[in-house]
Amino acid sequence: MPQIALDVMGGDAAPEVPITGAAQALRELPSSTGLLLVGRRNEIEQELSRQRVPRDRVVVVDAPEVVEMGERPLTAVRAKPQSSIRVGLELHKRGEADAFISAGNTGAIMAASIILLGLHPGVDRPAIATLFPTGAKPVLVLDSGANVDCSPRELRGFAHIGSVYARDVLKRPRPVVGLLNIGEEVEKGNAAVREAFALLQDDPGLHFAGNVEGRDILRGACDVVVCDGFVGNVVLKFYESVADVFRDFLVREMDRDLLESAAMQRVFRILDYAEYGGAPLLGVRGISIICHGGSPAPAIKNAIRVALQAVESGLSQHIGAEFASDGAAA
Amino acid sequence: MPQIALDVMGGDAAPEVPITGAAQALRELPSSTGLLLVGRRNEIEQELSRQRVPRDRVVVVDAPEVVEMGERPLTAVRAKPQSSIRVGLELHKRGEADAFISAGNTGAIMAASIILLGLHPGVDRPAIATLFPTGAKPVLVLDSGANVDCSPRELRGFAHIGSVYARDVLKRPRPVVGLLNIGEEVEKGNAAVREAFALLQDDPGLHFAGNVEGRDILRGACDVVVCDGFVGNVVLKFYESVADVFRDFLVREMDRDLLESAAMQRVFRILDYAEYGGAPLLGVRGISIICHGGSPAPAIKNAIRVALQAVESGLSQHIGAEFASDGAAA
Repeated sequence: MPQIALDVMGGDAAPEVPITGAAQALRELPSSTGLLLVGRRNEIEQELSRQRVPRDRVVVVDAPEVVEMGERPLTAVRAKPQSSIRVGLELHKRGEADAFISAGNTGAIMAASIILLGLHPGVDRPAIATLFPTGAKPVLVLDSGANVDCSPRELRGFAHIGSVYARDVLKRPRPVVGLLNIGEEVEKGNAAVREAFALLQDDPGLHFAGNVEGRDILRGACDVVVCDGFVGNVVLKFYESVADVFRDFLVREMDRDLLESAAMQRVFRILDYAEYGGAPLLGVRGISIICHGGSPAPAIKNAIRVALQAVESGLSQHIGAEFASDGAAA
Repeated sequence: MPQIALDVMGGDAAPEVPITGAAQALRELPSSTGLLLVGRRNEIEQELSRQRVPRDRVVVVDAPEVVEMGERPLTAVRAKPQSSIRVGLELHKRGEADAFISAGNTGAIMAASIILLGLHPGVDRPAIATLFPTGAKPVLVLDSGANVDCSPRELRGFAHIGSVYARDVLKRPRPVVGLLNIGEEVEKGNAAVREAFALLQDDPGLHFAGNVEGRDILRGACDVVVCDGFVGNVVLKFYESVADVFRDFLVREMDRDLLESAAMQRVFRILDYAEYGGAPLLGVRGISIICHGGSPAPAIKNAIRVALQAVESGLSQHIGAEFASDGAAA
């Protein structure tokens, strides 16, 4: 019976929105799935009394401290041992939960995940993997913000981590990896990317398609796009804003009938990140999923669904095996 | 009487499309403007006989060689002294043309511009400046692909170059500069960007707004966004593809009446890069404008218009003065 620990104190509208997402997830997921709601017990109980949540499938775990969004990650993680982030991750570390999800302070979730869960042997740095919605199947981009100044070896590590995720969670048996660059030719790019190209090309454990450009990300030629967390984060946030800008523009230009048409509803659905849920921090020993601070309830629900898929597919174990066996860590 | 040299052999549909763009420009621009059409004389004359071009305002300059799109830039520039790129830039260097425009091999245009025109004293590296269309006023992003691995000092140089362009060509008297980063806080980013932040903050010659994230580019809070050419190029190409993907999606989802409605035409117009024309290579001693290889005629026309604005505003002289006077080169 899989148990998912959810930090219900994280995000802009906590604990209401995470608990609404939890309720939605419990209605959709198999009844064998249970949730551990981690946070201030009183606030959680109040919220549970207001919402329709199946009480036999949730356990409330008290965590009296909260890491605020603006706090310095490492300082906050050290200074607040009773924070919902630490308590939730400790449940996961002890095996009382099979995964952890939070929409709280991203830096604090990363730092606490690395400190408490540790990295799989051979993994130099963990990466945040984000699904970019496209007209067709979504594309996994990593790293999308956990690291800057990545070494070629770290970029190769991201290629392996992303390939395992694509197999286990996206159900793509032979994931194709592209290296984000400013041209297709081998000699293009900065020093780190040029060296990473050589490592990826020589790696028999990957299906490497070569360099891909910014324009290729959404074309679906690759399943996994590997990049430094600086460029990945810039592109991710840019994409989120394009969707917002475009939506605002359509709302301004169109009349209500058109906006409510089935065609426009499909357009908005593609633009809607809430469909996609959280981004996993991959490479740690366990499942830690980071949601946007502004995540609405459906995004929390989807993050819970993704966590369950990750648990049931053995994602973390497979990432560990990838680095133990096939030279990804060489 | 300003004279603009146009490489009519550059681009996917040369010389037809550049000459069509030239004809459109001559119809719209003041009659004092003349164009030097640079390329294979026979092909140009054939095309001129097919199109309605005011012959008294164009001069054909023969350049029998063509740099192909796939050629190695430096090799091609050296091996083809009679190429339209070199001949056109030499006209500009000698003062027979006031600006140069090409939709040819980007690397070759850059290399030839730097070699033939040289850089203004104090400019370490030139930058390609691209206008990103937004719902409101466009935003200038530089560098969008001329350089990778930029130093903090080079990034500061881009801030000055972009500010001059924003004043002269965009007519924004007090351009606000943002530094592209992965968070707003001072300590965010990679090593080069953190150091650049300090340089920009201490620079009395700039209106520095601090770090901006990917999501801020299109929000119009800044006039000029400064970044390494690697990330700038990735975001630029990504944005171009978002527009294409979105347009394809709308075309697929909507019926013809809707697509042809005034509201949708306004949406498409915003998505249409052709409105914006070429991207100048700034920092060289002169005006060199690089167009997309796939530029349609209206983009060429707009590049000619931008070149004229640059010439008439004294852009290149002002960039030289910026580095000579106010410490941008210190």
